[in-house]
Amino acid sequence: MTSDFEPPYWAVIFTSKRTSGQDREYDDTAARMERLAEQIPGYLGIESARGPDRLGITVSYWATLEAIESWREHPDHIEAKSRGRSDWYDWYELRIARVDRAVTSHPGQEP
Amino acid sequence: MTSDFEPPYWAVIFTSKRTSGQDREYDDTAARMERLAEQIPGYLGIESARGPDRLGITVSYWATLEAIESWREHPDHIEAKSRGRSDWYDWYELRIARVDRAVTSHPGQEP
Repeated sequence: MTSDFEPPYWAVIFTSKRTSGQDREYDDTAARMERLAEQIPGYLGIESARGPDRLGITVSYWATLEAIESWREHPDHIEAKSRGRSDWYDWYELRIARVDRAVTSHPGQEP
Repeated sequence: MTSDFEPPYWAVIFTSKRTSGQDREYDDTAARMERLAEQIPGYLGIESARGPDRLGITVSYWATLEAIESWREHPDHIEAKSRGRSDWYDWYELRIARVDRAVTSHPGQEP
């Protein structure tokens, strides 16, 4: 993500354990959700990593809680979340946090 | 991590791009840092994922900002961070955030 914005802003920390299988459909949906989220006013960026143990962490960043709420209520997102719960995740944790401080090794640069 | 604690608490979101090579020494140090952090009063838990593109996200959770400060100032941690900057990371971003809401699919269970 870019580091061009200053705290405070908001982070949605989504930690999940993927089930095995259905990688293609999951990957397609994840990519589509990312493109949709980018269109929500107040979206700032996203970072995502998943290791070979299938544990993944995705952090999305938002200017306001209202922007997070808009994304939470998007019909396509609601549908994807339902698939996630039934098919794609063994378990997940979702946290909403206010970012108060940010430090970067590449000021002003996009990774 | 366990989900037995209630917000508000604090999250340190560390996003990084690993350089290639030196995996063993990096992995050893990361494991040692995790064991050290667990001994800091106020440490709540940690989650970590790194994908094949070497982008990693580690989120550690803390009861107070004072606990984060204690960990930040730990001499072994300071030394590890110095190695990280010089050898292990192409870039990193570190954010401190206050977790206000948490939802889990496995209440009371440890993943």
